[in-house]
Amino acid sequence: MNMAIDEAIDGVNSDKGGPFGCVIVKDGEIVGRGNNNVTSTNDPSAHAEIVAIRNACKNLNTYQLEGCDVYTSCEPCPMCLGAIYWARPNNVFYAVSKEDAASIGFDDAFIYNEINKKDEDRKINFKQCNIENMRKPFSIWDSKENKKEY
Amino acid sequence: MNMAIDEAIDGVNSDKGGPFGCVIVKDGEIVGRGNNNVTSTNDPSAHAEIVAIRNACKNLNTYQLEGCDVYTSCEPCPMCLGAIYWARPNNVFYAVSKEDAASIGFDDAFIYNEINKKDEDRKINFKQCNIENMRKPFSIWDSKENKKEY
Repeated sequence: MNMAIDEAIDGVNSDKGGPFGCVIVKDGEIVGRGNNNVTSTNDPSAHAEIVAIRNACKNLNTYQLEGCDVYTSCEPCPMCLGAIYWARPNNVFYAVSKEDAASIGFDDAFIYNEINKKDEDRKINFKQCNIENMRKPFSIWDSKENKKEY
Repeated sequence: MNMAIDEAIDGVNSDKGGPFGCVIVKDGEIVGRGNNNVTSTNDPSAHAEIVAIRNACKNLNTYQLEGCDVYTSCEPCPMCLGAIYWARPNNVFYAVSKEDAASIGFDDAFIYNEINKKDEDRKINFKQCNIENMRKPFSIWDSKENKKEY
């Protein structure tokens, strides 16, 4: 966890982005690491956890992190929580909470609240549009042979 | 929306990943597009919406998508919903639902359920660890001058 905190500090000091860091460990070895790179790379998805997951997947040549533990300096936001579920590590350890992040101006807690709202009640307008061929990608996927599932 | 569906179909047919596509529009022009690239790039975060957001941010040279509309072939999963909130577009239009995605084996609806659970009740173990210097990144950030907020 100290290394995740150090990643966060390095990120702020080198103007990479917000004050967040993450380290991913497998069998006692560091397999991925990263800090928040949102503003330096113009990538709103480049939170520390996602940067570290991408790094670990690259290093391990996989899109699944079974057997890995994630150490992150702050409780994951919904985007990062989702990314963690898709990557499927064993454990997630975090230091400060999403309420701490909110206290210095980050939207983590706000987004947790928005998720449970109906489309029409959200701050960003969500709307379902039924169009004729909308199930075609799924039916092609369903009948595809040798597909790589995840 | 038809172009988002076409992106999804192209992605499946070219073995890039799952059956999902996304197009981002600003002032009537397409500024970003993408399909699911998870299995072809070993990046579990490379869902269609995130690929399209990264593409739009690159094209517009920004990390914020004010004034943009997101057209996605499927209701965003929590990761993509989070990414959308961080990118801050105006509107999100989607075709099939997260329940449709669940019906062909994708975890979107499952992750929506996990988000509201307590750390100890989740399928992936989450645990807060209090360590002495855990607030140091935030205090450095707080006192930093000329920082780029997002």
